[in-house]
Amino acid sequence: MTITYKNVYINNASTIAGIYEANGPLKEYFDKTYTKDLYFGETSWEHAEIKLLKDSIDLLLKKTKFKETDINLLISGDLQNQIASSDYMAREYNIPFLGIYNACATSSEGLIIASTFIDSKKVNNCIVSTVSHNTSAEKQYRNPVEYGTPKPETATFTVTGAASILLTNEKTNIRIESATIGKTIDKGTKDVNHMGAVMAPAAADTIYRHLTDMNRNPDYYDLILTGDLGKYGKNILINYMKEVYNLDISSNYDDCGTIIYDTDKQPVLAGGSGPACSALVNYSYILTKMHEKKLKKVLIVPTGALFSPTMYFQKESLPAIAHAVSLEVVEK
Amino acid sequence: MTITYKNVYINNASTIAGIYEANGPLKEYFDKTYTKDLYFGETSWEHAEIKLLKDSIDLLLKKTKFKETDINLLISGDLQNQIASSDYMAREYNIPFLGIYNACATSSEGLIIASTFIDSKKVNNCIVSTVSHNTSAEKQYRNPVEYGTPKPETATFTVTGAASILLTNEKTNIRIESATIGKTIDKGTKDVNHMGAVMAPAAADTIYRHLTDMNRNPDYYDLILTGDLGKYGKNILINYMKEVYNLDISSNYDDCGTIIYDTDKQPVLAGGSGPACSALVNYSYILTKMHEKKLKKVLIVPTGALFSPTMYFQKESLPAIAHAVSLEVVEK
Repeated sequence: MTITYKNVYINNASTIAGIYEANGPLKEYFDKTYTKDLYFGETSWEHAEIKLLKDSIDLLLKKTKFKETDINLLISGDLQNQIASSDYMAREYNIPFLGIYNACATSSEGLIIASTFIDSKKVNNCIVSTVSHNTSAEKQYRNPVEYGTPKPETATFTVTGAASILLTNEKTNIRIESATIGKTIDKGTKDVNHMGAVMAPAAADTIYRHLTDMNRNPDYYDLILTGDLGKYGKNILINYMKEVYNLDISSNYDDCGTIIYDTDKQPVLAGGSGPACSALVNYSYILTKMHEKKLKKVLIVPTGALFSPTMYFQKESLPAIAHAVSLEVVEK
Repeated sequence: MTITYKNVYINNASTIAGIYEANGPLKEYFDKTYTKDLYFGETSWEHAEIKLLKDSIDLLLKKTKFKETDINLLISGDLQNQIASSDYMAREYNIPFLGIYNACATSSEGLIIASTFIDSKKVNNCIVSTVSHNTSAEKQYRNPVEYGTPKPETATFTVTGAASILLTNEKTNIRIESATIGKTIDKGTKDVNHMGAVMAPAAADTIYRHLTDMNRNPDYYDLILTGDLGKYGKNILINYMKEVYNLDISSNYDDCGTIIYDTDKQPVLAGGSGPACSALVNYSYILTKMHEKKLKKVLIVPTGALFSPTMYFQKESLPAIAHAVSLEVVEK
């Protein structure tokens, strides 16, 4: 089931990133970077994460002609238990709020819900936000960084950053063309240090269904871009698509986790992860390339692992999901 | 901003409850009860919670003419970190999945998103689910029950139960008429043992905006029904509505937390809470009364506290939210 949209446009977006991201290849594309430390003047990692998210909303409003009171709806999610970063961000704004959670696929879930509200004329506009923070994620999901727990090469590195996007029914030069909502796929993998392997089958299922529903070949898109599979997961996806669906995506496919960092030079193992990984890349680098018309049709496929530490400790395998959103340059 | 819907109908719903709920006044209205213990044959509270949720979906499908493959969209959320109960339920179904989190207001968030997808013809139908489990919630939010931690009278008691509802574009005798999305309200309250006080201002804001947007008086509705304010929070809301908005809701207002249990006789302190509290009451008792035409217009207002233990330990106050959904008997 792929949904098509007629009147949903990207008005503007804001991206704020931390140190590792500012030291990566996309530095010049971010609106703002915090490069002193990961506290950003706050007293806890969690409050730093909330600050990042608020910053991204404030900056987005500043970049547009919209005031807070003009915004009809705010949709946000993050990795914190009870999506606390989004909750505590939302209390600062007098805007109706819907909290969402699909782990690192959260930004695409938000785009799809927002586009549906706008296309159906229930609202005129909507801000969709997400955030992740390396050390608050490490503390919650794994161990505090100070423990120095070693990790294998297949592990990914949670991106520190926040990204917000404003969708409207007012025409701009980039639109949300269609979207495919992911199914929850669990192939029995239990390795929390190899999320690329966990999430690749979910990405494959969604990409395959999207292309089939829309009767498109992979080369319809200038770029197909998963969220945070990392350098190993990326190859797994390419092979999986070929073997299971007989589809070759190798010539126009990439993964945000390998774009946001220089995985050969930076200490980020297999690449970036976290909901901010794909949102930062898509809302900075990709939108810039689309504005420049160097990319005209892009299928973004943020990927998420839907597990919790509690379920992992109870020996459960790791379900995953991926939602695909087709972005298109509007031809005059 | 209140959204109106033209073609969204309640097809059917399923409700499954635990021991305390089966011992309460609504026993005869639930489809199924588990009265032996709170494990339901599983080995952990969390797996018991997942089982409840799956049970409710299976039972819902069984009660309707719909097969799993007929369902276009599944929306679910719960209280577990990373909404794990919904994630692990969703992997069992081959249905596109959107995970949501607005704490105990989750069911109304789901109804609103689902109604928007259906009314805009993006999907034909959608299942919306939620679950909560007393002892898994105690373990995660407070202390394991075995610790015997005492609580004040203002504390509420997390409902054990799961509830699923099928919304469709096919006409039935109850429809979703309109909805008001809540704003995140934080009045600075920090008492996690008095959620009624935390959430009442959010409920008041949403009810006031709903009535104002729709140009309705409180008595337009046969019943206005909050989610889980409990017996103290209920009185706070009545007084708050009168003092702040000069609106008297006392004659047609009630709270699901005081309906699901007999708070005078059962050991549940101020009453029920948890996302299953309002969903169980609304999808069993209220829908039955609407089918019998004893209630024709009902405004359900599930209420949620958007905090996390981590933020509470960092001395933060507790934000809250409430979404209002207007249910209406369809006159022939």
